[in-house]
Amino acid sequence: MDTDKIINFFARDRYAALAGIKILRVEPGYAMVEMEIEDKHLNAADIIQGGAIFTMADFAFAVASNAGGQVTLSVNANITYFKSATGRKLIAEAQEVSGDNKLIGYNVDVTDENNDLTARISIMGYRKKERMPF
Amino acid sequence: MDTDKIINFFARDRYAALAGIKILRVEPGYAMVEMEIEDKHLNAADIIQGGAIFTMADFAFAVASNAGGQVTLSVNANITYFKSATGRKLIAEAQEVSGDNKLIGYNVDVTDENNDLTARISIMGYRKKERMPF
Amino acid sequence: MDTDKIINFFARDRYAALAGIKILRVEPGYAMVEMEIEDKHLNAADIIQGGAIFTMADFAFAVASNAGGQVTLSVNANITYFKSATGRKLIAEAQEVSGDNKLIGYNVDVTDENNDLTARISIMGYRKKERMPF
Amino acid sequence: MDTDKIINFFARDRYAALAGIKILRVEPGYAMVEMEIEDKHLNAADIIQGGAIFTMADFAFAVASNAGGQVTLSVNANITYFKSATGRKLIAEAQEVSGDNKLIGYNVDVTDENNDLTARISIMGYRKKERMPF
Repeated sequence: MDTDKIINFFARDRYAALAGIKILRVEPGYAMVEMEIEDKHLNAADIIQGGAIFTMADFAFAVASNAGGQVTLSVNANITYFKSATGRKLIAEAQEVSGDNKLIGYNVDVTDENNDLTARISIMGYRKKERMPF
Repeated sequence: MDTDKIINFFARDRYAALAGIKILRVEPGYAMVEMEIEDKHLNAADIIQGGAIFTMADFAFAVASNAGGQVTLSVNANITYFKSATGRKLIAEAQEVSGDNKLIGYNVDVTDENNDLTARISIMGYRKKERMPF
Repeated sequence: MDTDKIINFFARDRYAALAGIKILRVEPGYAMVEMEIEDKHLNAADIIQGGAIFTMADFAFAVASNAGGQVTLSVNANITYFKSATGRKLIAEAQEVSGDNKLIGYNVDVTDENNDLTARISIMGYRKKERMPF
Repeated sequence: MDTDKIINFFARDRYAALAGIKILRVEPGYAMVEMEIEDKHLNAADIIQGGAIFTMADFAFAVASNAGGQVTLSVNANITYFKSATGRKLIAEAQEVSGDNKLIGYNVDVTDENNDLTARISIMGYRKKERMPF
């Protein structure tokens, strides 16, 4: 696995780039991404928009689940918000839970600078036959 | 209800604004929002990032559930993706399913220009005692 | 479609039978089932156990999604409970939301005798190549 | 905490008893329950009905989340099925993920005799002010 090629490929995720999300670590079945909280992530109530948290989780899932080289799409996701974030950045870690079938399962934990769990996302993916271009 | 005040208030959702999402209709318990698909919404596989679809749904929920004046937060959401979007824009419609308790339920349907269902999102909200500033 | 054959086939669902769930209507993509509330459905707090409501929903989904003759399995389900049931029986109605792909979506509404929505369940199914024996 | 009192109290869950589910371990925020697979748990396709797996998970959550003495209800649950069960029994383990607020989060893993993950369930609970009678 060539980590730089994977990171370069996912730099093409323009929606994750718009949100300023960066890959910190990646290996097949695992990814850690980071988002520095800025004004642009806030909703009308001045807290982080749910979509920004979800975008991180979806991106971490995409990186982790495709890192092994087989194209994987998200088909379902369930997000539960536990507490408001404290500090200036969020970390999302995606970890494969079950990966033997066409339908695979991932857990993504989003934590804040206090290491408190802000949200947990369960994502179900579908493995296609195509290979990734890296 | 003063629709303009509500729309002005939600113009402060900077993450929805970043994604270019616009409110088309709002009344207590209902909202319709629109997003013109641009390059910035695409992921590394050149399809709309799940986070962009989720952001629309979360925003439509926030507008609909707060339009009645009582502060409501999202606590859980479940999204299922049905098919890739066709055309240049997406519509998300949020509709209250159950609203009598502190915990309320919303359905959000995201449809494309063919009126095909791209994704459906079930959102559970929590009503707080505070009132909205409009 | 031979409705009696479908009903006979699903009489083999022993867990639904244990709960006393009966099919009221079935057609491809739709089913309505009923459960008379008995002492055996209650949990330690004397309310209907979540599993009993879920069993109804899962059964209604199975009947509706297999009625067309192609084997369909549930891969994910999301249930939200809205209010305690009133009266002596519950109805669950399963309706196809999206059915064009291998991955299909269903909505199941569980209502009580007041016609109040007790719970809503989103179920994602996976269509296999095998045909049902009816 | 008096474990026997808790186990006695939850022996009143008649739907869990109907399914033959037994508590193996309990402490505040954690429970392990077991179900021996019998003919009565099977659906029309001769595999374990989703409702039986869900019933285990709901029961494990109820035992774990109420063990601390404060009444807790399930408000939402999301289940993903990963693989068919092998062997003659299933184990469900409920573990608190986030417990500081009124809205709490649990993860429940259901494993078979091979220790393979059959299903994972995320449950969101709501803490009431009432105390349990034990």
